[in-house]
Amino acid sequence: MSQKRIALFGSTGSIGTQALDVIAANPDLFSAEVLTAQTNDTLLIKQALQFNPNIVVIGDEKKYPIVKEALAHTHTKVFAGEKALEEVASLDCYDMMLAAIVGYAGLKPTLCAIEIGKPIALANKETLVVAGDIIMRTAAEKRIPIIPVDSEHSAIFQCLVGEGRNRIEKIILTASGGPFLGKKPNFLVNVKKDHALQHPNWTMGAKITIDSATLMNKGLEMIEAKWLFNLTYDQVQVVVHPQSIIHSMVQFTDGSIKAQMGLPDMKLPIQYALAFPNRIHNDFPRYDFKKPGTLTFEEPDTKTFRNLALAMEAMKQGGNMPCILNAANEIAVYAFLRNRIGFLDMTEVVEQTMARIPFLPEPTLEEYFETDGEARNFAASLIHM
Amino acid sequence: MSQKRIALFGSTGSIGTQALDVIAANPDLFSAEVLTAQTNDTLLIKQALQFNPNIVVIGDEKKYPIVKEALAHTHTKVFAGEKALEEVASLDCYDMMLAAIVGYAGLKPTLCAIEIGKPIALANKETLVVAGDIIMRTAAEKRIPIIPVDSEHSAIFQCLVGEGRNRIEKIILTASGGPFLGKKPNFLVNVKKDHALQHPNWTMGAKITIDSATLMNKGLEMIEAKWLFNLTYDQVQVVVHPQSIIHSMVQFTDGSIKAQMGLPDMKLPIQYALAFPNRIHNDFPRYDFKKPGTLTFEEPDTKTFRNLALAMEAMKQGGNMPCILNAANEIAVYAFLRNRIGFLDMTEVVEQTMARIPFLPEPTLEEYFETDGEARNFAASLIHM
Repeated sequence: MSQKRIALFGSTGSIGTQALDVIAANPDLFSAEVLTAQTNDTLLIKQALQFNPNIVVIGDEKKYPIVKEALAHTHTKVFAGEKALEEVASLDCYDMMLAAIVGYAGLKPTLCAIEIGKPIALANKETLVVAGDIIMRTAAEKRIPIIPVDSEHSAIFQCLVGEGRNRIEKIILTASGGPFLGKKPNFLVNVKKDHALQHPNWTMGAKITIDSATLMNKGLEMIEAKWLFNLTYDQVQVVVHPQSIIHSMVQFTDGSIKAQMGLPDMKLPIQYALAFPNRIHNDFPRYDFKKPGTLTFEEPDTKTFRNLALAMEAMKQGGNMPCILNAANEIAVYAFLRNRIGFLDMTEVVEQTMARIPFLPEPTLEEYFETDGEARNFAASLIHM
Repeated sequence: MSQKRIALFGSTGSIGTQALDVIAANPDLFSAEVLTAQTNDTLLIKQALQFNPNIVVIGDEKKYPIVKEALAHTHTKVFAGEKALEEVASLDCYDMMLAAIVGYAGLKPTLCAIEIGKPIALANKETLVVAGDIIMRTAAEKRIPIIPVDSEHSAIFQCLVGEGRNRIEKIILTASGGPFLGKKPNFLVNVKKDHALQHPNWTMGAKITIDSATLMNKGLEMIEAKWLFNLTYDQVQVVVHPQSIIHSMVQFTDGSIKAQMGLPDMKLPIQYALAFPNRIHNDFPRYDFKKPGTLTFEEPDTKTFRNLALAMEAMKQGGNMPCILNAANEIAVYAFLRNRIGFLDMTEVVEQTMARIPFLPEPTLEEYFETDGEARNFAASLIHM
């Protein structure tokens, strides 16, 4: 295959840096055409000097002079600001976008890429949680694939390859259960940020690690899966599997279940999404079934981890409810990370925001943006109280 | 899809009767065009009266008058004898052969079907064990698929769908371990037929149930897999998984592992092979991951279950060695089933036959037949002693 030019939106985060490892390991297959970062100018500059992208964008406009200066002697073009992210996403200079910006901020550039018909490797689940209907409809119109990078959704995507029109009975999203599996509210009420940031299996960014500890991450993944694979809410099931070896499963109409498995390592789904439909040889460590091993499964405790129940409820309601859930959760998680609220307070913020913001059954993109803003403001007001 | 006319070779055995259940449940998709049995005239007649096949064949020529008489008032044509099996297999009156004759006897009719370009649903593993090179080469020349019915190989086949030319690193065949998992030779030496016929997970015919108890079945499956999926001997690994929920796995060149799972029920792989590439809805019981459950894995004990080691050795040597292994094993198993030899003696018969019959690195089909005969004679002579 010829070299694929990757526009890496969110290159300095956990997914972005691992994606650059994959690109560096396969220079004949991939080039980094675009790199973007929100605030981390130091790492963005370092990456640009290593990968010689055509374009870099720094989201934080105050950092523009630093980046511009550092790359003045190279051929790399430098832009800054939120608008520039969208403009660059709309340029026909790359073959695939890796959408790895964290949170809601990833939505607009991703939509720009879809609109000019670029395939998407999607690491930003909030894009689908907030506006999955619009994203998937636009992608279908443009006939471009949305290839998930989340390990669970990559697993399902891999299981669906070649199945054509065979009907999905349900998908089974596996959840590690996070660092507080088996704990009860009387324990969780005292949990602090440093403890919640210790995930047993996966190395990830701070936002998603907290979401994993509260199980909100699994709730967002349910909504993401519903959109990616065109399912109804009752076709998405969560099963706790603490070893994180089975990354998720698909049960077909004949009862046959397909699973994708491996050691927990985000590089594998990143590489798969970039190279799809091909698989690239690598030397990542393999899971060894010859070693005596045990895989266990149990139902999630949605009474303790109420975020998961709230996400299921938002998925069932549809409309702008997942957008409200996501906006309130982003505010709550960043407040928790700044030690402003407690672990269980995050759920309270989300629940109260869902109860307050007006429900819209079929929002337009503009209404999603409005909902997002209102939900953030309301959630923030709860925290300032 | 239009109705697929199935030639069911071996309709009265375990696979055959379950296949007829699948056909009966899907009359718009399948018809039983040909039914054959070796000796069970009573069941063959009953099946013919229910399914109105175009042709039935009874292998045992002495039973011909009974079958002919019983079906005289129908339009079903009746043939008898081994030659008739091959002649009917060569008729262009069906769309797919389900090759479910037990043992070596299935080879010739299957080859006839391949030679006239009929897709094969293959439930007869001995066909590939004995002459895998010739079978797969001929199938490739005729551009017809060999779709495995064995649950393990069906699992691998399902995992490979849509993977195109992506390289297989290895396949992982799961083994229940059979009824004597964890037992040692001092226990096995006294095992009798009735005990060996109690398989913990699967309901199968007598020959394969004994082969499961000795692990020879897994050895034959390794050789079958090597041919079906064009692997080298070191790409085939066996892992003991006593729950039989994961039916087998494929590890790709990127380290990603795909598995196919479900409750142990042969109807699923039978239905899959008949309907491929489509999946048919059914009401077979589903595996429920919500129930607390544990899947375990361990290395097979090839020191105790030496049949598995012998099969690995035969696979590694290639040529006519798997044919020798298979022939000696068939004689040994039937002798064990008639209480002529003990459980561990089966391994002795196979080992001594492998040591005695001349090795041919690249046998012709005729040489395979000769090897088979010589090996059977020698194995039988060991038992008569």
